[in-house]
Amino acid sequence: MTTKGLEYFFGPKSVAVVGASKNPKKIGHVILKNFVHGFGGKVYPINPGAEDILGLTCHKSVVEVPGRLDLVIIAVPAPVVASVMKDCARKKVKAVVIVTGGFSEVGREDLEKEIKAIAKKAGIRVIGPNCIGVFDSYSGVDSLFLPSYRLGRPPKGGISLISQSGALGGAMLDWANLHGFGFSKFVSYGNAVDVDETDLLSFLGRDKKTGLITMYIEGIERDGQTFMKAAKRVTDKKPVIAIKGGTTEAGGKAVISHTASLAGSPKIYEGIFKQCGIIQASDLEEALDYSRVLLNLPLPKGNRVLTITNGGGLGILSTDALEKFGFEQAVMEDKTLDALKKEMPDYAVIGNPIDLTGDADTERYAKAMDAALADPNVDIIMVNILFQVPTLTSDIVEAVSERFMRKEKPIVVVCLGGGYTQTHKKALERYGVPTFDYPERAASALRCLVERAEDVFCKDSLKTCSIRRPEAKTARRG
Amino acid sequence: MTTKGLEYFFGPKSVAVVGASKNPKKIGHVILKNFVHGFGGKVYPINPGAEDILGLTCHKSVVEVPGRLDLVIIAVPAPVVASVMKDCARKKVKAVVIVTGGFSEVGREDLEKEIKAIAKKAGIRVIGPNCIGVFDSYSGVDSLFLPSYRLGRPPKGGISLISQSGALGGAMLDWANLHGFGFSKFVSYGNAVDVDETDLLSFLGRDKKTGLITMYIEGIERDGQTFMKAAKRVTDKKPVIAIKGGTTEAGGKAVISHTASLAGSPKIYEGIFKQCGIIQASDLEEALDYSRVLLNLPLPKGNRVLTITNGGGLGILSTDALEKFGFEQAVMEDKTLDALKKEMPDYAVIGNPIDLTGDADTERYAKAMDAALADPNVDIIMVNILFQVPTLTSDIVEAVSERFMRKEKPIVVVCLGGGYTQTHKKALERYGVPTFDYPERAASALRCLVERAEDVFCKDSLKTCSIRRPEAKTARRG
Repeated sequence: MTTKGLEYFFGPKSVAVVGASKNPKKIGHVILKNFVHGFGGKVYPINPGAEDILGLTCHKSVVEVPGRLDLVIIAVPAPVVASVMKDCARKKVKAVVIVTGGFSEVGREDLEKEIKAIAKKAGIRVIGPNCIGVFDSYSGVDSLFLPSYRLGRPPKGGISLISQSGALGGAMLDWANLHGFGFSKFVSYGNAVDVDETDLLSFLGRDKKTGLITMYIEGIERDGQTFMKAAKRVTDKKPVIAIKGGTTEAGGKAVISHTASLAGSPKIYEGIFKQCGIIQASDLEEALDYSRVLLNLPLPKGNRVLTITNGGGLGILSTDALEKFGFEQAVMEDKTLDALKKEMPDYAVIGNPIDLTGDADTERYAKAMDAALADPNVDIIMVNILFQVPTLTSDIVEAVSERFMRKEKPIVVVCLGGGYTQTHKKALERYGVPTFDYPERAASALRCLVERAEDVFCKDSLKTCSIRRPEAKTARRG
Repeated sequence: MTTKGLEYFFGPKSVAVVGASKNPKKIGHVILKNFVHGFGGKVYPINPGAEDILGLTCHKSVVEVPGRLDLVIIAVPAPVVASVMKDCARKKVKAVVIVTGGFSEVGREDLEKEIKAIAKKAGIRVIGPNCIGVFDSYSGVDSLFLPSYRLGRPPKGGISLISQSGALGGAMLDWANLHGFGFSKFVSYGNAVDVDETDLLSFLGRDKKTGLITMYIEGIERDGQTFMKAAKRVTDKKPVIAIKGGTTEAGGKAVISHTASLAGSPKIYEGIFKQCGIIQASDLEEALDYSRVLLNLPLPKGNRVLTITNGGGLGILSTDALEKFGFEQAVMEDKTLDALKKEMPDYAVIGNPIDLTGDADTERYAKAMDAALADPNVDIIMVNILFQVPTLTSDIVEAVSERFMRKEKPIVVVCLGGGYTQTHKKALERYGVPTFDYPERAASALRCLVERAEDVFCKDSLKTCSIRRPEAKTARRG
């Protein structure tokens, strides 16, 4: 395990795309386009048969590129990859992403061994082969050969994703972009001829732009002990969430035909994750929910939640969901309740939930949130917003996000609806406010946050720890 | 309990809006606009102070409307509703929706009693007060005073929704529209001065355009026995799904301040639902998932599922999800497998899941689906589609929906992604194909379908029943 040289994958000064093509259907074209569109450094298309592509002069080989070359993306057929690797060695390239398939996954271990040997001898770090490679929202590195009209790239943010499955990881980025969730880095490492999940985890653990790491893994590629030691070091500093593919017998069998990883028994992986502080999500949805909450919210001081709503029914379902996930219902102090009653219309219900009723405006929400932030009996605030009502103006986005950004108490938003709602939801997400369509999902994510708080606080000061893990009254989802 | 006259709420020939206004901020304006925009019959704005609104001549009172008047929507302040009701009685109006609030929910039982007495004497059916009323996607009746840019109306379809909470029901319609789920009728019945959930359930049970009924209820308004008898009759013919608000102690308390319904113990409601064949969903998400699956899919002959995928990772997660929800993995006949192997590229994995791999096109999906439809060992087909890959063309929508519409075996689609994916997902939904972002949600919904199949088939022929309820290996969600 070593993180040496991994920085060249994410922040290179110069990049060459081998297999760049004029044909928009070729992956070498899509990759070059990504760099021309979004990368700040120098970009060199490599194609012995073309003069220029997308306005850039072509070179016949990486050796011909003038000056230093940090990163090379290889998108030529498997049998010629080794010769390109030899050129990279001559050029003293630092890092190579091989997106090409046709190696060990189809029985051609020989081809894989050859490139491995060249890389090792020359000290080149390699991601792949048989992967979609690297995306960095800050630097613009983007070897994802899936065109952006099909796979939207997420905005800048603090989540980094490591995925053993390229297609699945790509779909997660695409989904994240739809909802406005920010990402920092993404790596699909394919056959992991060199760089594996342990290297990446360690590197991202020290990366300043990564606040949280999410992993999709089917199996740990190499030494389990090394992985665990590395993971432990990272989880001491930032949250790591894992989704394990193949947690059932049939799923484990499917893993063998996919990445040939040893899926291992679910119990073993559960134990490994637990021991090194990795939070295991039971599905993709949960992983993205947990990620946003753990990244963006301050740790709560307890598990007492106050719900604020403009829809009575949604408030009830939120209360039910919180109870099911073991939260306490916050009971605000009498003086808070009295003060709020004076400021609100008679028909508003001042309790928990606080029902601001269907004609609530931004001001009413602001007053209720301020009261909840100030009241010592409230640890967490769940804000329900039904955007369908005409009295609610768009500045609710500012009112919520401003209070959220003070990071005094965790605030989450539940809002169910169509296009108008989604527009506001996405605006909230862009400020980092975790939003959920359904109360159950918010409650499930908050539970993960409280568990993290318990782990952090109760470890630091065992005696004074006041966090109580919510007692689940029903089973967790999945 | 009587359904007499309820047809006038959904298929009136003529409608008057009392409280129609020129001011776009007034709910009387929004409601009139809905009818002008989408209703085929005659529309009369009633406002003593205006000459015409939205191009229609105003009348001073419903009494002045020429000819027969089937339905009146009342959107004037609570204290004047009784006098409007008296006019409706003189005019021999059949049905009235009172959207106005300010009755028993704020302690004005007196006003409510008065309108109840007038309605009873004149034989007028009343929905409300304190509700958002009625929406019918076929006739264009639409008293929802939430403007359509905020609350999108769903397309025509077979789901009817009865909701004790107007805002929550409205949000569900809005969400449904975003995803292309079709709806038939929606009723928010508010204080239920006359028409209640039992009347509506019975009416919709006989409604030809309603294939399935979904209910959000906080408590049964009146006689539990009558409700159960009515519900039993309906569930013998079509599926009824209920989400109960207030299934926890804290949730139950919140119900009292919302609709003052007796929330009752969750166990009692669970028992009631079970006894009369109502399927209880644990949250809104599950309710909409169950609804689409039960409405659109044929009942399976067993619980053996085959997964078809173009992403190995997603296939594994699907397999895991199916196992968790207790399904059997279908094992296709040798001759099917051999035939498929001949038709597919070498690197495709022909098993369960069938991994068509990342360069799959529509033709490969078509072949795999045809094989699964023909194989006697497959009861249900779960199709994973990652739309991000460039080889997949949009005609996959036709390939899937055409096979889906034969209704030979249940087919569901799992596809995760952003805008491009959502466009195709919505196109599939418009044909009725149930689509899901995550495999867990699909598996949860399919489980509900298999349970329904078991109930239906095993009741009809106890001896020959071959459906086996999936054995859950973990708890259900929520």
